[in-house]
Amino acid sequence: MSDTGNARRHRVVALSGGVGGARLVDGLARTLDARQLTVIVNTADDFRRYGLHISPDVDTVLYTLSERADPVTGWGIAGDTHLVLDAVTALGEDPWFRLGDRDLATHLVRTAWLDEGASLTDVTVRLAARAGVRPVVLPMSDDPVATIIVTREGELPMQEWFVRRRCLPPAEAIRYAGADAARPTDRVIEAIRGADVVIVGPSNPYLSIGPILALSGIRETLRRGTATIVAVSPLVGGRAIKGPAAEMLTQLTGEATSGAVARLYADFLDGIVIDRADAADAPAISALGIEACVTDTLMRDRADRARLAAETLAFAASLRGSPHATDG
Amino acid sequence: MSDTGNARRHRVVALSGGVGGARLVDGLARTLDARQLTVIVNTADDFRRYGLHISPDVDTVLYTLSERADPVTGWGIAGDTHLVLDAVTALGEDPWFRLGDRDLATHLVRTAWLDEGASLTDVTVRLAARAGVRPVVLPMSDDPVATIIVTREGELPMQEWFVRRRCLPPAEAIRYAGADAARPTDRVIEAIRGADVVIVGPSNPYLSIGPILALSGIRETLRRGTATIVAVSPLVGGRAIKGPAAEMLTQLTGEATSGAVARLYADFLDGIVIDRADAADAPAISALGIEACVTDTLMRDRADRARLAAETLAFAASLRGSPHATDG
Repeated sequence: MSDTGNARRHRVVALSGGVGGARLVDGLARTLDARQLTVIVNTADDFRRYGLHISPDVDTVLYTLSERADPVTGWGIAGDTHLVLDAVTALGEDPWFRLGDRDLATHLVRTAWLDEGASLTDVTVRLAARAGVRPVVLPMSDDPVATIIVTREGELPMQEWFVRRRCLPPAEAIRYAGADAARPTDRVIEAIRGADVVIVGPSNPYLSIGPILALSGIRETLRRGTATIVAVSPLVGGRAIKGPAAEMLTQLTGEATSGAVARLYADFLDGIVIDRADAADAPAISALGIEACVTDTLMRDRADRARLAAETLAFAASLRGSPHATDG
Repeated sequence: MSDTGNARRHRVVALSGGVGGARLVDGLARTLDARQLTVIVNTADDFRRYGLHISPDVDTVLYTLSERADPVTGWGIAGDTHLVLDAVTALGEDPWFRLGDRDLATHLVRTAWLDEGASLTDVTVRLAARAGVRPVVLPMSDDPVATIIVTREGELPMQEWFVRRRCLPPAEAIRYAGADAARPTDRVIEAIRGADVVIVGPSNPYLSIGPILALSGIRETLRRGTATIVAVSPLVGGRAIKGPAAEMLTQLTGEATSGAVARLYADFLDGIVIDRADAADAPAISALGIEACVTDTLMRDRADRARLAAETLAFAASLRGSPHATDG
């Protein structure tokens, strides 16, 4: 518990998509000193609508960390109104992506700052500061990457498939357009290199974590770094709390199990936290050379978030066994 | 009053900027059959803000013609709220251009349609249809033109000078960036060529009418056409009802008079409607070979708009003396 003069606080990096990842990040922010925590957020479902740059996962992380997120949906702003989108509907447009009025303000400001030449990283750091968010929140890249869902009806952009089409037809493949050319920012690479622990959030492996891993250099940096790397499975009893992770795992790997999740990260993963309902997955995970930690992973409230975060950090510390790993 | 078989209804084109022009256009729409009226609107103070394409004069015309305009300011939507801009302010941005929530919906939809490849003309016609506006409303061009105010502190874009700087420092010159390359649309040229009467609205000669006249071919089309062309002076007693027209006329011509306004249009103008308070300007106008019609030009309410519109049409008819000019 004591901070000796030359002992630095250990540094934690979390990779996150939307709601599930954001909730674990919130738990980490409540458990760690905020200065220890850096969040790297998927931006491959960023899109332009009505001329506005919308970063759904970044916003979900920022709204969750500033305690403004809608507690029911997990995204958007609690108690937001929809005057503008109602007026858009009255003009005859189909507002399939529902934007609240206060949420719109975020997109207006982000777009204004980007148009003035700021990078997405600059914009995100400024938005976080304005919202009183203390952990460092970094978009995975300042370059555009777009998750494309390949279906039997052709290719669909992520938000259109996810929101407008409600994940139908099923995804037959995923590709990350632009990922070859996009670079993770220097701050992202430095954060991973300097981390003692990297936590892969309970986000969709294909839609949220996959794009981050697809950026050139990310997997290598994870593999070559000294951090202990643990994931939290997004599945509870073989089903996802939100979104199509289970269906996608079934379609793309043959099974919606935490073992299948671990296999997607097997080249860099040290351990994975899985739910008690999926305890039967543990042997398959061990067979990959990955440790499994079985606990309750459902985050119903803020106490759950903090508990799961603390258990995940303790699990990572047990894997490393190094003295600074208990410093948080 | 009768419509004989081969007598076509006479066609009226109005050139308009913002509030004053829009109110006269509203009077014309109440006086004429809507099918007779085409409005050509200045777009040289269009700008992008927060990624949105904002067309202030087009919106003022559409809101006025659909009876939604704020009756006090003349622009924006009556009773609009400002939830989004308040949230933008809370994020630390200076929202110097106040956009209401319902007004924002117009800009979102316009920007979405433009991003889908529609022209500004298409977008405007669709917005007009959605709002139940019956006259044809045409932006002067689908190409970008930007009114630039030359001041002793340098050049300022129109909206920044007009709204943010409140018309200071004084305009020493005006230029219309892009006007050389921009073309009026075919529909604009055809409307002027086919018109029996062209009415130059009581809008700022430099900020609203000037950009329309600066487009290549517009002055020639007005000069060579067969329409009777009358202006309505924006001055009452040497002062403008709204905006800096008087100050600009003084700075740029030496006098804020309806004679100075007539002189700016002298190469194509047949007549000008001036206020009783400016009756002393009539001799100078006559000396230009332009007829003056002296009446009350202040539009306090809808009845005033219709009366001034009817008087302006009757004045144009008197100048032409042709039988179809009384057909409206």
